[in-house]
Amino acid sequence: MKLADRLSRLGTETAFAVSGEAAAHVAAGNKVYPFHLGDMNITTPRNIIEATYQAMKDGKTGYCPNYGIPPLREALAEDINKSHGTSYTMDNVAVQPGGKPSIGKFVLALMNPGDEALYPNPGYPIYESQIEFNGGVAVPYTYHEGEDNFELDLDAIEALITPKTRLLIVNDLQNPTGAESSPEQLEAIAKLAIKHDLFVLSDEAYFDMRYAGKSTSLASFEGMEERTVILYTFSKKYAMTGWRLGASIGPKEVIDMIAKLNVNDESCSNHFIQYGGIEALTGDQSGHEEILTVLKERRDMTVAILNSISGVKCYRPDATFYLFPNVTELMQAKGLTDYELFRKAVLQETGVSFCTRKHFGSPIPGEKQFYIRFAYSGIDLDQIEEGLGKFKAWAE
Amino acid sequence: MKLADRLSRLGTETAFAVSGEAAAHVAAGNKVYPFHLGDMNITTPRNIIEATYQAMKDGKTGYCPNYGIPPLREALAEDINKSHGTSYTMDNVAVQPGGKPSIGKFVLALMNPGDEALYPNPGYPIYESQIEFNGGVAVPYTYHEGEDNFELDLDAIEALITPKTRLLIVNDLQNPTGAESSPEQLEAIAKLAIKHDLFVLSDEAYFDMRYAGKSTSLASFEGMEERTVILYTFSKKYAMTGWRLGASIGPKEVIDMIAKLNVNDESCSNHFIQYGGIEALTGDQSGHEEILTVLKERRDMTVAILNSISGVKCYRPDATFYLFPNVTELMQAKGLTDYELFRKAVLQETGVSFCTRKHFGSPIPGEKQFYIRFAYSGIDLDQIEEGLGKFKAWAE
Repeated sequence: MKLADRLSRLGTETAFAVSGEAAAHVAAGNKVYPFHLGDMNITTPRNIIEATYQAMKDGKTGYCPNYGIPPLREALAEDINKSHGTSYTMDNVAVQPGGKPSIGKFVLALMNPGDEALYPNPGYPIYESQIEFNGGVAVPYTYHEGEDNFELDLDAIEALITPKTRLLIVNDLQNPTGAESSPEQLEAIAKLAIKHDLFVLSDEAYFDMRYAGKSTSLASFEGMEERTVILYTFSKKYAMTGWRLGASIGPKEVIDMIAKLNVNDESCSNHFIQYGGIEALTGDQSGHEEILTVLKERRDMTVAILNSISGVKCYRPDATFYLFPNVTELMQAKGLTDYELFRKAVLQETGVSFCTRKHFGSPIPGEKQFYIRFAYSGIDLDQIEEGLGKFKAWAE
Repeated sequence: MKLADRLSRLGTETAFAVSGEAAAHVAAGNKVYPFHLGDMNITTPRNIIEATYQAMKDGKTGYCPNYGIPPLREALAEDINKSHGTSYTMDNVAVQPGGKPSIGKFVLALMNPGDEALYPNPGYPIYESQIEFNGGVAVPYTYHEGEDNFELDLDAIEALITPKTRLLIVNDLQNPTGAESSPEQLEAIAKLAIKHDLFVLSDEAYFDMRYAGKSTSLASFEGMEERTVILYTFSKKYAMTGWRLGASIGPKEVIDMIAKLNVNDESCSNHFIQYGGIEALTGDQSGHEEILTVLKERRDMTVAILNSISGVKCYRPDATFYLFPNVTELMQAKGLTDYELFRKAVLQETGVSFCTRKHFGSPIPGEKQFYIRFAYSGIDLDQIEEGLGKFKAWAE
């Protein structure tokens, strides 16, 4: 059987292999402490579930428009306008089956084969995959260690821009680093995009997942609304990862094309869960607040224990549910220079399961520090304490 | 703003414009008889809704595997094996957000740019769109009027095959014609596919939507399981169009690639509705039987009234919920040679809304007969009688 040539350019999320190994470790009778999951072990707030059930019973079981149902698109435009200071209407919103579909559709709508697209590395691996799969040239930009968190180097980013650069993908409040840029830095990125006529995907999956401070969107800066597509998702804010409900929000001309891709790819998103989405946005917010309270406690404990381990250094980001500790010294102390050997040793000997920097893109040439990624969204406080206690004992 | 060049090759379902016009006609204070919809005005059976609600409450709200949940994949393999005589396991099944995603993913997984792909015209417009969008050459084959229903001409299909032909898309129990091939014809198509080493998409969206007889799948013939991808959907059988739940079923090597596309495009399908899918397949089937009973009555009445109209000829297919009457003489009698003028005249003057042959692909050069498409899935019996009564009065 001859598969299509283009599949050789298709990437994946290698982190799934880590889940598989963790499951095998459990199946072999061991205990696993799951820090590798970007998923949440927190249930969706009940009011959202009930609104969805009601919609099913009300017969919202037939097709809906490819753009999504108007009241959800209106609620999304209103919600984003409030936090972003933008002026979107429902015409700027195309509902999607999750946050992820916005990545591929953004690339398909705006990038020609041969165009260059800048994306964060370490970063969510689907950016690179969709750029390359669709014939573009994926150009990585990276983060470096700053005072309180990872930081972008804007001069380095601008140096990567060529006449062929067309897209810039930004994931502020970032997976896997937990990095976020200051409003001043974001404004400078916006100016860069305008100066070089770049189209921006603002991946805002973690925009509302914060424990202090305030998020700023690239779409908020002058001249950016017309060149930005926001990736919106209900997944994290309301613990709805498995619902697959999100939206692409941007200039009408682009959203119309993305909605035309919806017609071709999946017709529309599930009809009745969109009523759950309306309840999420406009109903009682205590479920979301409770989620943040739970995650903040987990963050504080995880950061505290990690920083107590000799050879491990970890920032305490105000947002996301990820940590990206520097484990260079620990690996040196253990005589390890290979990420996978390190990861597997920790899993086998302690049950602590995590991803490494390599699950978020190939290390940039010259990269000398070693990092691993901890997600604390899928593990309870007592298990964090127990698991990281074992990790600490193993490390020292 | 410069959109990507590939968008010029992206098609759509022009039938949505008909829905828009019908809605505008209603908004202007008129009554509409909706025969244009491929949607159903029948609710999903309650046992499926309740199983889904239970899964939500049981916390099936996080991500699931990109292939779908194992028990649903097993239930699908078993269900298909029973009706098809195949030997699939869950390894041959990748759950999808609807039936439609199987079309694009089949094309992406198996067709290189420049390859030729055979597809039915008149037919579901997304085949042509996905072939062309992804750089293939869409080669239409057509149906002609037979004794009891529309028929395929196998010699004509074989004459279209060139050394560059790679894919064959077959939609037996067809939208829009309601055509179905005999087992002997299907076997001949299978032999054609094997002889010319073609990969087949068997779009089985209407496989279980039949009022008499038995469906046969191309995958059932010797040597076909390894070169066929079945498009499976829950949409019609269980009135679940708006749920967006289906599956690609085929050789493991292709399904693995389709599941890798899932990772890139949407991660996975909605988690908890997959439990509704299990209940649909393995639970009480009276809901499905009731749907068929309702549709059969509608078919009988629609066919009877259409055939009572001077200048209209209509088959009575045993399957699907579509009719494709020949209206050549009626259009001649009205002095009309343009599909859109005819369709709009009927809508304006009677409120009867339908699609025409042109919504299912460009007429083939030399095509001299005129056809319109009636769907009876979204309109009740009394409205069929009232609406078609007006259509008959207008016609005569």
